[in-house]
Amino acid sequence: MQALKDRILKEGRNLGNGILKIDSILNHQLDPQLMVGMGKEMAQHFADIQVDRILTAEISGIAPALMTAIELNVPIVYARKKQPITMRGTIYMEAAPSHTKGGMVELLVSGEFLKAGENVLIVDDFLASGETLQALCRLLQAANANLVGVGIVVEKSFEGGREAIIAAGFDVPIHALATIASMDGDIITLA
Amino acid sequence: MQALKDRILKEGRNLGNGILKIDSILNHQLDPQLMVGMGKEMAQHFADIQVDRILTAEISGIAPALMTAIELNVPIVYARKKQPITMRGTIYMEAAPSHTKGGMVELLVSGEFLKAGENVLIVDDFLASGETLQALCRLLQAANANLVGVGIVVEKSFEGGREAIIAAGFDVPIHALATIASMDGDIITLA
Repeated sequence: MQALKDRILKEGRNLGNGILKIDSILNHQLDPQLMVGMGKEMAQHFADIQVDRILTAEISGIAPALMTAIELNVPIVYARKKQPITMRGTIYMEAAPSHTKGGMVELLVSGEFLKAGENVLIVDDFLASGETLQALCRLLQAANANLVGVGIVVEKSFEGGREAIIAAGFDVPIHALATIASMDGDIITLA
Repeated sequence: MQALKDRILKEGRNLGNGILKIDSILNHQLDPQLMVGMGKEMAQHFADIQVDRILTAEISGIAPALMTAIELNVPIVYARKKQPITMRGTIYMEAAPSHTKGGMVELLVSGEFLKAGENVLIVDDFLASGETLQALCRLLQAANANLVGVGIVVEKSFEGGREAIIAAGFDVPIHALATIASMDGDIITLA
């Protein structure tokens, strides 16, 4: 997605340790037209696949997942990282190590909003090591839902997350709107 | 907004202590068409006001704020509750007591994305006691930005938040898409 790639090259900053600062477009500030474009390209890429629902993880996955859901006209559920007071009944929970935050991150989805047999597309902001995405995939397994694809805004291909997801047995189409091949000092190189 | 009111009456559950469970439409699962409608009605209500930016708070404010931002074609910034590793430089921080979570909630916005002189519309999911919204208003004061209005998806008018915001000196138009006048056992009454 060219508009996204342009913004990453213009505004992205390598903070070291594999951390890319693009909070001007994805993790703090959002640009409405860029978001609409992300949803359109994501929906177009998965247009030939039957999608019943989109699953993402709070916080920064919500915006791109919602824009994709609007284009595909399907509901979205976002995994919570802490159990809200309103989450009752059956809860699916998985955990993943967080490289940017340290420790483990829990992901919780209510059984009310993830049904057996549904075809679910996962949409998230980053694909780095793939740990969080694998936890989302496991949530779908737990619910007996069908994982039909993974859509990512920014993939850092040098962290091997795509291969890790496939190696873990989640062999589905993975599409990234922008792929970062390397970050070296001030130089960010797109694939 | 009739479609929202209908869904609240159909799916909302009073969990006691003023807690309304509407996570099927606002805090966990999102309905794409309902979200588009929220953005349209919010934008329409504030159409005569010059808005340069929308401010919301993670997590559940992001979706309605983004939909409003798309209609008004302005950027959105969402206050973070923990400082992300990518948040650098000047940071505006305010804290508010959380009645649903206990303790204090911190709200952080980077000075990069909140500028002096900007006309800012606050959009959030709930208006209850108004504590979180007042903290968002104070963030704008700290940044010397202009608060031009407050848009809320669901107001619980019986908690007096609207009056508290005005009493705190933030005397701007406040618009709620749905207003709950009372919750008594299984009976939710809209204003």
